[in-house]
Amino acid sequence: MGIDRTLIERRLDELYAIGAEPEGGTFRPLYGPAWATAVDRVERWLKDAGLTTRRDAVGNLWGRAEGTDKGKSIVTGSHIDTVRNGGRLDGALGIVAGLTAVEALLKEQGKPRRTLEVVAICEEEGSRFSTNFWGSRAITGAIDAVDGDIAAAMRERGLDPQKLASAARDDIDTFVELHIEQGAVLESSNRPLAIVTAIVGTAQLEVTVTGRPDHAGTTPMDMRRDALAGAAAMMQAVESIARSLGKPAVATVGKLEVEPDQINVVPGKVVFTVDLRHSDLGGRRALEERIRSLCTTISQERRLGLAIRTLQEKPPVTMDSDVRALLARAAKECGVQAPEMVSGAGHDAQVLAARCKVGMLFVPSIGGRSHCPEEATKAEHVELGTTVLMRALQKIAY
Amino acid sequence: MGIDRTLIERRLDELYAIGAEPEGGTFRPLYGPAWATAVDRVERWLKDAGLTTRRDAVGNLWGRAEGTDKGKSIVTGSHIDTVRNGGRLDGALGIVAGLTAVEALLKEQGKPRRTLEVVAICEEEGSRFSTNFWGSRAITGAIDAVDGDIAAAMRERGLDPQKLASAARDDIDTFVELHIEQGAVLESSNRPLAIVTAIVGTAQLEVTVTGRPDHAGTTPMDMRRDALAGAAAMMQAVESIARSLGKPAVATVGKLEVEPDQINVVPGKVVFTVDLRHSDLGGRRALEERIRSLCTTISQERRLGLAIRTLQEKPPVTMDSDVRALLARAAKECGVQAPEMVSGAGHDAQVLAARCKVGMLFVPSIGGRSHCPEEATKAEHVELGTTVLMRALQKIAY
Repeated sequence: MGIDRTLIERRLDELYAIGAEPEGGTFRPLYGPAWATAVDRVERWLKDAGLTTRRDAVGNLWGRAEGTDKGKSIVTGSHIDTVRNGGRLDGALGIVAGLTAVEALLKEQGKPRRTLEVVAICEEEGSRFSTNFWGSRAITGAIDAVDGDIAAAMRERGLDPQKLASAARDDIDTFVELHIEQGAVLESSNRPLAIVTAIVGTAQLEVTVTGRPDHAGTTPMDMRRDALAGAAAMMQAVESIARSLGKPAVATVGKLEVEPDQINVVPGKVVFTVDLRHSDLGGRRALEERIRSLCTTISQERRLGLAIRTLQEKPPVTMDSDVRALLARAAKECGVQAPEMVSGAGHDAQVLAARCKVGMLFVPSIGGRSHCPEEATKAEHVELGTTVLMRALQKIAY
Repeated sequence: MGIDRTLIERRLDELYAIGAEPEGGTFRPLYGPAWATAVDRVERWLKDAGLTTRRDAVGNLWGRAEGTDKGKSIVTGSHIDTVRNGGRLDGALGIVAGLTAVEALLKEQGKPRRTLEVVAICEEEGSRFSTNFWGSRAITGAIDAVDGDIAAAMRERGLDPQKLASAARDDIDTFVELHIEQGAVLESSNRPLAIVTAIVGTAQLEVTVTGRPDHAGTTPMDMRRDALAGAAAMMQAVESIARSLGKPAVATVGKLEVEPDQINVVPGKVVFTVDLRHSDLGGRRALEERIRSLCTTISQERRLGLAIRTLQEKPPVTMDSDVRALLARAAKECGVQAPEMVSGAGHDAQVLAARCKVGMLFVPSIGGRSHCPEEATKAEHVELGTTVLMRALQKIAY
């Protein structure tokens, strides 16, 4: 029994071409034309593989192979949307690997004991609307209201926003997702595969520093209340706190805006974001508390105003121990010793964990690159990841 | 002999109303409708004061009272344009004080011995085009070419860009300008007036820091090449170097841009500006060299790319010692001990210094505010500054 490496690569190429952008990379925002074309293409593949397809109220595409036993489904897949100038593998790999693995199982092993499903989740990236995890949140029944713009976009695709609740499922037993690492840990440790233990908890803060805009020539250094100089001291603190806490703590200042942003005016206001992650809730909170405290001290020393607002907060999510053990056995049977690692990025599995057992496999990202046209994984790693995924599905569903 | 305080304040109010903006402050960009109205208004005042007016090829407005002696002119005035949301006094004060002082002299002392002129310089701020010191540069004959957009704007005001060279003058002996300090040094030392010794030299640098954009979740701290974290360290260095060099050194990071500027992406590129000033050329150069050197060290330690480009460079300009002595005597005769100080801001006098003797008086800015609607000076300080200016003009021209 084997996976057809050529078939996987060809399917990944086909998906990558849908939404290709002139400046490189691809863009398939939720409910856009490229998104719709990609969903159609995957549906055809699912049907060709012998699966029964359906689309739910939010636009998730499901392919189902009914099991001989009654009971909850074993599901694999990933998201079909991309970021702008996105790469070839983020999301797409989990769908293509899942359907290719299930296709091979059906062909060689026949009807499964447990119902097997492949899902193309409609949205995870939040690239068009502020909808992150729109598809998986609908599956867990976690969406209460639909914003007007999103509702309009849904109707354009023939989806009824009123029926959103019908996308919720309580009949999934296990969700397994193959994904690229999107970092360079596997590559730099020379490992072809990892089993995810947890997805980090994230807090995103918005820090507003208020000083006084002054003439850059006429205001002596000791009379200034420079918001950017204060923000620079805070950014240094953010970095050194994350470093001193050690792995897997990370903290990033990604966005920054200066006012009035003029070459000859001392900045009066700076707004910047801090993205904090840790696999342990206590660790994440410690990180946040130290950052808040040091920013406060810096603002007081410099007579600056300070306001810190939490934009988003997500607790860490632990992968199910049975699923981790299953994936480890499957890897071993394929001749691979897969290390465990924490995912620093968010994935659909963390949302679905509220309703079913979840597990994830990571394959290396070349150079750690992701969310860009350079996003790539060696074909042998893609094949290995798909093979281990298939083996795990076989062990649990047959 | 005295200055009519009410008249000065009324004229300043009238000018401030020309170009008033709905959100506060005034805006009279070069060759715009508000600018043209303001020039017309000043011309009427000049004529009412008994001066012969003319406009030169670039739009500078001159009012002239011929002296009994032949010889070069004694000139006072300032610029008539403003920044966006500009205040009531920057530029306007020098024009209104100059014409009010000359008006009083003519009325009470009659025809001067030396020719007295009042000038409303067309542009100093660079708020519409990158034209800083357009008016005074034309007077010194320093403009070689006219950009197409500026030429079109000139033609709209009936000015012929071909004749620009005719604005150059070699018959000015002395230029004296009254200006607001635009900083808080006089106010905080409780002084009503200062004599400017020099205008600082300025260098404006653009620093580009190049790192690598990475996923904020999946990239451990020790695998990052974070351009913004590096820029933060550089900004801290800029501030501490200026502080350690002591007054009058100042260094300001005023503009900063991050790429890709996303909350969950490690910044790959940062571009920021550094504005450096010192009244002494050696001091300014030492400041720049230390900043360049420390930025280089930081970029090397952090494996970041670094490019530093000089956007602008102006040497310090010393005010003429005879004019400084004249102003000091005039102040003393008015009962004021005026301290000497360095101007951290640029002024038309620094350009005109290439062709004539120059001197400047500063009156305090309340709260050090300038280039904003809050820009203000106590009426008694405006009156004092105008009186000392008048006394100086009397001493030199009568």
